Amino acid sequence: MDRRTIFQLIAAMPVAGALPAGSANADERSTRLSKLNLSELPPAWVGKEQIAILIYDDMTPLDIVGPHYFLSALPGATVHLVARNLDPIHADGLTLTPTATFETCPADLDVLLTGGGVGGTLAAMRDPATLTFLSDRGARAKWVASVCTGSLLLGRAGLLRGYRATSHWIGRPMLKNFGATEVDERVVFDRNRVTGAGVSAGLDLGLSLVQRLRPLDFAQTIQLFAEYAPSPPLDSGTPDRATADVLAGARQQLKAFVDAVNVMGPGAA
Amino acid sequence: MDRRTIFQLIAAMPVAGALPAGSANADERSTRLSKLNLSELPPAWVGKEQIAILIYDDMTPLDIVGPHYFLSALPGATVHLVARNLDPIHADGLTLTPTATFETCPADLDVLLTGGGVGGTLAAMRDPATLTFLSDRGARAKWVASVCTGSLLLGRAGLLRGYRATSHWIGRPMLKNFGATEVDERVVFDRNRVTGAGVSAGLDLGLSLVQRLRPLDFAQTIQLFAEYAPSPPLDSGTPDRATADVLAGARQQLKAFVDAVNVMGPGAA
Repeated sequence: MDRRTIFQLIAAMPVAGALPAGSANADERSTRLSKLNLSELPPAWVGKEQIAILIYDDMTPLDIVGPHYFLSALPGATVHLVARNLDPIHADGLTLTPTATFETCPADLDVLLTGGGVGGTLAAMRDPATLTFLSDRGARAKWVASVCTGSLLLGRAGLLRGYRATSHWIGRPMLKNFGATEVDERVVFDRNRVTGAGVSAGLDLGLSLVQRLRPLDFAQTIQLFAEYAPSPPLDSGTPDRATADVLAGARQQLKAFVDAVNVMGPGAA
Repeated sequence: MDRRTIFQLIAAMPVAGALPAGSANADERSTRLSKLNLSELPPAWVGKEQIAILIYDDMTPLDIVGPHYFLSALPGATVHLVARNLDPIHADGLTLTPTATFETCPADLDVLLTGGGVGGTLAAMRDPATLTFLSDRGARAKWVASVCTGSLLLGRAGLLRGYRATSHWIGRPMLKNFGATEVDERVVFDRNRVTGAGVSAGLDLGLSLVQRLRPLDFAQTIQLFAEYAPSPPLDSGTPDRATADVLAGARQQLKAFVDAVNVMGPGAA
């Protein structure tokens, strides 16, 4: 085979790595605004936020994947998934990989966000390294946010003292243990603290934060991308909508969690 | 040091592994119904479904993490995250770890579910191994489900021919390319095919499936656990609610995706 034939064969080969079998080309892969050429976007849509989302074993993944959808769409922003170390995080059958540790996470954050859970959140509330990380980054972050019982973790780290806040409905009455004032709303803003109700409230909180970080038309565009026009097939999403039996059963399931939080002291700092 | 002293010291030590620093005890860790002792639950709440969720690079994680929350709560069910191989899946900045491959995934499934995306979904729609997996498992699964543009992937695998279906709003008009009939609804059931609208519709779809798989009071309990009473802060979640400018901009962002799907043939089988 002569050199010319070899070159012709090479030229006809797909570019290894760039376009593996089945891959989409660059244009087609521009799936999210975050992946577009920033120079093509309205300048006001582009930022440079440093965003840290705490992840830990036995948390509820949807608590953070909801807001992650919205926050990771911010053009120019960097989202870190932060854990004690880079070991995989196991949570409700999903395995998530951290991208930063308590040490390597940027010192000055635009957004610090934590999700909740039950057993995993209790463990985090008892973990000095986690509390130190939260209180340190939270003291300087522009926005300090939580979803679900993540607000109890913020409280335990001393970050909600004197603030109005919400939580998963089971956690709301315990906010006072940490010096916060319970508010029965889906997303609560008090100065730079942003707390969400249980699990699915992370979507509302994520979009609410995007509203604060970008122009209105950007937030509207991301809501349209997410087709976020929810339509629950049942009407049992809050304690006042659920039947008495369903509510009593759920409270029973969560009793050990409530008892464990209530014997904790107010926590750090 | 005598043996008695050594035993006393050992007895005073925390049990390594069982209760690491900061860990919650077993009661407290019963965070989800799926983690409870099954014998304590009403027998009708317990099943033994085999559920497979397809994951692939550059998909939209929220598409599957929404339904995963609900499906992984089914007591007794097993949820597999299935990919071509066990390499980590990278999607919008999150790294997910598969638990099964196309080969090791159970042959007979109760639920087969795929999410969507844009670039990643196009690549999956062009990948013979993915299409073969879907058409094989989908031919026997009790429920075949998708969220977002995942319905285009089901269509490409030949699984929606002759069915009514929905998709992300951008994908809905393309369902006919694959022999399906477009329906402008949030979650569409047609026989055993269950398709959802864009991204966030995965929560509605997940809860809808739980309703079919368990008694009503179980589904209501999970909705209450998720505090699924959504309250979007903006009203731009569908093409008819968004402003003309926002819709036009979003369509422009997604034009390469639409063009790429429209030049594809109907696909497998």
